[in-house]
Amino acid sequence: MTSEFDLIERYFSRSVTRDDVVLGVGDDAALLNVPAGQQLVVAVDTLLAGRHFPDDSAAFDIGWKALAVNLSDLAAMGATPAWATLALTLPAADPDWLREFAEGFYQLADAHQVALVGGDTTRGPLSVTVQVQGHVAGAKALRRDAAAPGDALLVSGSLGDAACALGQLQRGETVAAELLQRLNRPQPRVSLGQALVGMATAAIDVSDGLLADLGHVLAASGCGATLWPERLPTSAALQQLPYEQRLACQYHGGDDYELCFTVPAEHYAELQALRQREPLPLTEIGVIEAEPGVRCQFGDGRIERPPQRGFDHFREDEARA
Amino acid sequence: MTSEFDLIERYFSRSVTRDDVVLGVGDDAALLNVPAGQQLVVAVDTLLAGRHFPDDSAAFDIGWKALAVNLSDLAAMGATPAWATLALTLPAADPDWLREFAEGFYQLADAHQVALVGGDTTRGPLSVTVQVQGHVAGAKALRRDAAAPGDALLVSGSLGDAACALGQLQRGETVAAELLQRLNRPQPRVSLGQALVGMATAAIDVSDGLLADLGHVLAASGCGATLWPERLPTSAALQQLPYEQRLACQYHGGDDYELCFTVPAEHYAELQALRQREPLPLTEIGVIEAEPGVRCQFGDGRIERPPQRGFDHFREDEARA
Repeated sequence: MTSEFDLIERYFSRSVTRDDVVLGVGDDAALLNVPAGQQLVVAVDTLLAGRHFPDDSAAFDIGWKALAVNLSDLAAMGATPAWATLALTLPAADPDWLREFAEGFYQLADAHQVALVGGDTTRGPLSVTVQVQGHVAGAKALRRDAAAPGDALLVSGSLGDAACALGQLQRGETVAAELLQRLNRPQPRVSLGQALVGMATAAIDVSDGLLADLGHVLAASGCGATLWPERLPTSAALQQLPYEQRLACQYHGGDDYELCFTVPAEHYAELQALRQREPLPLTEIGVIEAEPGVRCQFGDGRIERPPQRGFDHFREDEARA
Repeated sequence: MTSEFDLIERYFSRSVTRDDVVLGVGDDAALLNVPAGQQLVVAVDTLLAGRHFPDDSAAFDIGWKALAVNLSDLAAMGATPAWATLALTLPAADPDWLREFAEGFYQLADAHQVALVGGDTTRGPLSVTVQVQGHVAGAKALRRDAAAPGDALLVSGSLGDAACALGQLQRGETVAAELLQRLNRPQPRVSLGQALVGMATAAIDVSDGLLADLGHVLAASGCGATLWPERLPTSAALQQLPYEQRLACQYHGGDDYELCFTVPAEHYAELQALRQREPLPLTEIGVIEAEPGVRCQFGDGRIERPPQRGFDHFREDEARA
């Protein structure tokens, strides 16, 4: 059936070629070959206009980010991405919008050699659900439930940039280009995640904010942590903010899509070697402990409970699983 | 993060247990074991309120149908379903609605031993995107592109029931219970699809209407067909309709989710054996030919072109891939 909304075929058929795609877009379902000895890794996330991105966001950025947030979930498992499907709900079939959306999607997909293998297009309020699939060697995936007391707690890159940009946008302030880039075109830490397989005990991507996501790891692992707030990695742009505001962005701001992970003492040497070749800073921000809960320890010896999240303007009423 | 919308955990964690689910809901991604020698089969479909079901549809039926339409895609590949993810966008977190939705989803999932392994919940206009994954023996999947001249053309069950029910609903007429059941709780023909592996050359599920879906098979296979309209399998309820109206439902009505498939002469004996044990009627409705296009041949020898689709009140502006 050819129709106005026959979009997946028209705008989304220039996928990368992969030998493991037996059948992509165009049949009832895709047919894929998972390499022998590998486990399948599957993540799904929806981005909704007015909730996960402003209504007037550039189509390129929406296409990019819808894939990025899913690749970030695969990165947090240490998986190698392979395939994606796209369920796109659109108020109208605007060719310019679609071309830009597809460009954003494909720019990131091509960078990670991800093939688009299926999809569904529907008319309705703008909403993008992407599912990505990848693989990881059997029993090697990074999970949330394997952190142990004594493990070092680390985070990649810098924290709070995306939340800072979002706050500035919402207040009508000028936003530094590098902060806006963090919000609109997050870089999933795929190669870092792969490098952490066999080294990190647990990992998660920072999508809901450091404290929330660290909390997921601690709950799943049945332990607690001491966090060193003064060591949270901070971009030059974020250094400009008043201390309290910066810290709120770093504690509670989501959308950074950095990896938060734990490394046991026996893998410190490997971690040091990884730091030599990894372009991103990998910063030790605390330590896993047996005692439940999170304690914030400052340079002057002061220990505080982490601040409660105030009104959550980032994402107040949803959860991802 | 626990919140009003922490729904996937609360309402959707009573999944069937499968040995091949290493990690289900609750981490960044699911971890799954695809059996050795099997290809992964992936389908995704979105159901949107007011488009794919009336706004006042029962939550149970929405949950059922969102999974059913995807299982139907897997059935059309001859695949064995295994896992599903659910991306649910909801205007509000109504516990009664959610319980019923989950019941509908799980009733069908349990019947096919499908485990829910991941999801995402968002606040917004009601929309349900389900992705299902299954597997099929390597190179054995039923595709659209392998029909050949001389193959018999068959369809399972009866055609036009769901479209008839939808039309009656839209006109405010009384709808027979058995027709309503076809519209609201379609039965994906999963075991039939599996039985057709190695026997059928091509298969598709009838979701967009017989002529549209047959058209997909013919286009992909590079051939045409003669169709025998008088032999289209017709339920007792549909027999009540005036001839033209019934035929329009059967030609163009979607949502039946029957399988349309082609069988070469060398597999007729197997087809006969299958008919003995398959509870659904499997009706020969035409023959595949080298000449492109579809010809409708009647008992009196008359041959006509199939009628053009009029205004498509079933699904006028979308396509699935």
